[in-house]
Amino acid sequence: MSRVFNFSAGPAALPEPVLRQAAEEMLDWQGSGMSVMEMSHRGREFIGICEEAEATLRRLLAVPPHFRILFMQGGGLGENAIVPMNLSGGGAVDVVVTGAWSRKSLAEAGKYADARAAADTRDDGHTSLPPPAQWRLRDGAAYVHVCSNETIHGVEMATLPDLAALGCRAPLVVDCSSHVLSRPVDWSRVGLAFAGAQKNVGPAGLTLVFVREDLLGRALAICPSAFDYRLVADNGSMFNTPPTYGIYVAGLVFRWIEAEGGVAEMDRRADARAARVYGCIDGSGGFYVNRVQRTARSRMNLPFFLADERLQDDFLAGAKAAGLVQLKGHKSVGGLRASLYNAMPMAGVEALVDYLADFQRRRG
Amino acid sequence: MSRVFNFSAGPAALPEPVLRQAAEEMLDWQGSGMSVMEMSHRGREFIGICEEAEATLRRLLAVPPHFRILFMQGGGLGENAIVPMNLSGGGAVDVVVTGAWSRKSLAEAGKYADARAAADTRDDGHTSLPPPAQWRLRDGAAYVHVCSNETIHGVEMATLPDLAALGCRAPLVVDCSSHVLSRPVDWSRVGLAFAGAQKNVGPAGLTLVFVREDLLGRALAICPSAFDYRLVADNGSMFNTPPTYGIYVAGLVFRWIEAEGGVAEMDRRADARAARVYGCIDGSGGFYVNRVQRTARSRMNLPFFLADERLQDDFLAGAKAAGLVQLKGHKSVGGLRASLYNAMPMAGVEALVDYLADFQRRRG
Repeated sequence: MSRVFNFSAGPAALPEPVLRQAAEEMLDWQGSGMSVMEMSHRGREFIGICEEAEATLRRLLAVPPHFRILFMQGGGLGENAIVPMNLSGGGAVDVVVTGAWSRKSLAEAGKYADARAAADTRDDGHTSLPPPAQWRLRDGAAYVHVCSNETIHGVEMATLPDLAALGCRAPLVVDCSSHVLSRPVDWSRVGLAFAGAQKNVGPAGLTLVFVREDLLGRALAICPSAFDYRLVADNGSMFNTPPTYGIYVAGLVFRWIEAEGGVAEMDRRADARAARVYGCIDGSGGFYVNRVQRTARSRMNLPFFLADERLQDDFLAGAKAAGLVQLKGHKSVGGLRASLYNAMPMAGVEALVDYLADFQRRRG
Repeated sequence: MSRVFNFSAGPAALPEPVLRQAAEEMLDWQGSGMSVMEMSHRGREFIGICEEAEATLRRLLAVPPHFRILFMQGGGLGENAIVPMNLSGGGAVDVVVTGAWSRKSLAEAGKYADARAAADTRDDGHTSLPPPAQWRLRDGAAYVHVCSNETIHGVEMATLPDLAALGCRAPLVVDCSSHVLSRPVDWSRVGLAFAGAQKNVGPAGLTLVFVREDLLGRALAICPSAFDYRLVADNGSMFNTPPTYGIYVAGLVFRWIEAEGGVAEMDRRADARAARVYGCIDGSGGFYVNRVQRTARSRMNLPFFLADERLQDDFLAGAKAAGLVQLKGHKSVGGLRASLYNAMPMAGVEALVDYLADFQRRRG
């Protein structure tokens, strides 16, 4: 068996020790005689697994007690509807459009609320971050939505906006799907944060929601019960049957992060990984190009282009032959993309950088 | 390692060969160098896995070409909202209430439609099936909803109602979560069927939806895009990231069923398992009691009671010591329950029947 280095934007690479433990426990979780997949979500064993996953996640991100952590389903696209059904009250919603994901959030919120773009970087191809002081925020908005890491356009907020300092009292909603657990979170600035699991957390089909308790209980009448944050919170994420196996694998990932040194260490590694790859791109004399402003660049998702796009198929074929897979860019922007999530080891980054240099040597 | 016999109503026991294969392929699916959990849902490997799962399921249940098969999220409780958001048009919905699950469906549909009970067996404690000829069906109803197997009350429809023969032109919606793939389906009687995976199919977090093509494209404006059947169908269940690992495991289960002899063989085994356990209960001279009318009894979920309920804790403790777990009844009805899904081997049934007889001998 030979494992590849997998640069997929999601579902994405998971830590190998997590996969090994999942494989070992597949038929018999810790002497229970059952796979975790086979356990009743109401049974003692699974409730323990779920509680430990939540507690570890809470420690890792220092989530304060007045935030509830929910394990839900439907991913980021699901939350694009679930958030306004729960928080908009049918009122005004301001969305900061910094790429494809926040644009989708804006469109979906429009089904339930008076949703408008508070800023939009479309004109520069989503290669910058608009300064919060320039956002057009409305008095009385139900919430302000940001995507703190745009998976497709490769734009990341290094810090979350301080809405209170801008004189805005609306809660901040953060789609942090593709960089959750890669840096600390300043919860004093957050009302709600959500993340699809399939990047830094675990298998697709699980969504993490962090919600300030005072925001519970505001759902519109048309909000499905299974997606009403109040009901989900009151039932410990078991109003309906949760994605139990996904929660188990996520719990293993959380423990792996803790054992590796926690979010501070993930933060340090993300810096190191991104510096290495952007350094190689920027040092290529224009052979490889990333167009995002340096201060807005994502450490998780690095879109880039070959100046001569005719080389792209050869680049991808050679990468695959070298065990470097899923480097093709998203179809909406084209080009190439390297996603460097927590589970990507430095050896994978070095292999990528070596390949970039080698390909340029041969074809540049 | 010693595997138990797991009578959980769901998440529930899975075939051991499926779990073995999942464990073996966890770090490297068929030479890809990746776990299925790590695969992009847009990649060649996963698309192949998903297409094969769907094709096998279609063969197993002889699903006609004018039905689409969707892999969704949210489970049965999610579908209770998703179905009326897609099919009701805000009009009339008739629900046949035969137990706890159809009652939940009625309540949730009431958020989106003029939902009424076409029949309700509450007065006999949901121990019977109301004859279709007695259902109060309204002209022009958007659909008629039945739960063809009530997991909690242990009531099962051996055949689906023929609405056309009753002069009703509304499509039939079938919640078949807890007995899908245990008997053939007469698709000529069905408009839409859905099933949470966590009983006969695979891990929790995956929902199967079978929908007649002419019913697509009717969603209410407030239906979340991620749950709009038309969008899900047009995107091959990849409008949002699907629960990829769940689809993979479901695919292994489908292949296991096919290798064992298909749905006809599952049907035969379900008869044999249920006959053995009901025979033991009915032959106990009233020591064990099942109150459901014989023609309405579920082959999948067998709720029963000890005539002397003070013995229940001892019964459950002894069962657990004998490796028979999850026999406690649902909290809303109390007592005991044995769920006998496709993955329950006859050896598990014999072990249960032996234990029932032995316990009665010692305590009767």
